[in-house]
Amino acid sequence: MAMRRFRPETPISIWDRQVGTLRELMERGLADSVATDPGEAVREAGLVVLCTPVEAMEELAAAFVSNLSPGSVVTDAGSVKSCVTQRLGPLLGGRFVGGHPMAGSERSGLASARADLFEGAPCLLTPVVETDRAALDGVADFWSSLGARVATMSPAEHDRLVARLSHLPHALAFALVHLAATTLPEGSVGLAGGSFRDATRVASSNPGLWTGILTENRDEVAGALREMSALLLTMADDLDAVKRDSLLDFLERAREHRDSLPLPPPEETL
Amino acid sequence: MAMRRFRPETPISIWDRQVGTLRELMERGLADSVATDPGEAVREAGLVVLCTPVEAMEELAAAFVSNLSPGSVVTDAGSVKSCVTQRLGPLLGGRFVGGHPMAGSERSGLASARADLFEGAPCLLTPVVETDRAALDGVADFWSSLGARVATMSPAEHDRLVARLSHLPHALAFALVHLAATTLPEGSVGLAGGSFRDATRVASSNPGLWTGILTENRDEVAGALREMSALLLTMADDLDAVKRDSLLDFLERAREHRDSLPLPPPEETL
Repeated sequence: MAMRRFRPETPISIWDRQVGTLRELMERGLADSVATDPGEAVREAGLVVLCTPVEAMEELAAAFVSNLSPGSVVTDAGSVKSCVTQRLGPLLGGRFVGGHPMAGSERSGLASARADLFEGAPCLLTPVVETDRAALDGVADFWSSLGARVATMSPAEHDRLVARLSHLPHALAFALVHLAATTLPEGSVGLAGGSFRDATRVASSNPGLWTGILTENRDEVAGALREMSALLLTMADDLDAVKRDSLLDFLERAREHRDSLPLPPPEETL
Repeated sequence: MAMRRFRPETPISIWDRQVGTLRELMERGLADSVATDPGEAVREAGLVVLCTPVEAMEELAAAFVSNLSPGSVVTDAGSVKSCVTQRLGPLLGGRFVGGHPMAGSERSGLASARADLFEGAPCLLTPVVETDRAALDGVADFWSSLGARVATMSPAEHDRLVARLSHLPHALAFALVHLAATTLPEGSVGLAGGSFRDATRVASSNPGLWTGILTENRDEVAGALREMSALLLTMADDLDAVKRDSLLDFLERAREHRDSLPLPPPEETL
């Protein structure tokens, strides 16, 4: 939908496992051609964008690599980059550019699609030393044309960053719902207000998808969870000791930093 | 504003320390009388609603208690109830009904006021054995008339509940901003997407107010922080051990519970 709006001349070829989805895409004019065979879908593509769970990408790429045109570039939209780069780099070579458009919501499927999903959203690209420079530029231009703010970093820097900016907030959301549900009287969690609602919105995300993301980035996510755990214990100790000044300072610095951030507008984007 | 909309016949007398605020209230027709002297403000009141930080309520009540009419009822809008009840009960007797309308946002001041703030919001009332039954009914009717969903529980149950549904989400928001700001390269926190934005919205709340709330409810909040810390360490251990099934089960149960909750609509309410 974003491509139809912002680059209507670019032909779109879609691969999916579900024939029903492909049929709907054709009916709605969102694809120029469709295929359930990955090799057929990529045959004339200048740019291939992998949008599957990160665990599925290697097998998928192996199924179409022999059908790629000589100049074609491959990127992906996965939430973890070191593992994807390690698996796809050897298979695809310099034409592969790891990418992570930080957009989407806890919802999934065609019914939740939006043409403006990428407008103002960060898109992190993670080239490595083997990456073709022209391929990187092409992928950056592609996401910019859909409205995203492109930034570039190494796969390891990416995974460390998103572990703390995205994967940790998701883990906290799941854990907060679990804590409330298991420690409070039945029915009382429904008395929650807006802070709980917003802190747990992404607990409605797809559990299978997020098991994959958290597992694939497990070293950084486990690290972030342990850092957070330590911070919470320090807060608890400060409360026990009624260290008002220490707590006030902690809260003031957090507010100052939060207010300084150029965060996306409050729609339901990841 | 909510009273003007939903019970326009009820006269409103406002106390504040700031003369400028009182003048603006009169100019905008939001008060029928104003005073900087608490005793003067309550003199003809049938219902007195204390809307100050919880630490300030005892001194304030002591300043007006001798001016209360015989049949008047006193309630409050504080976020912690055991400490308020212990301090105000002896002073005010059965006419005091602890209350907590769970509405508001990270913003404060007259500019952030909304007439529909309480519509659909939970309002928790916390009577004790000494509380007059008629006083409780009157306060329940008051909040219901402004659109709130009234629920009743003991002060201890309230404090345990909000420690996990409100105070913990606030503490997590402050801690998450702090963690990102101190562990990531400068400027990179601005690359966050919607999950971080929503998880940290209330980190923009008033630090002084929240130092008071967290400190006054410190036993329950410290307990909730330690429960959360333990949950996060379990998640980290499960990730280290690549326990996919355990993680998937945890995420599935969280999503199921989250999706079953009657949460308020996504406006910026606490």
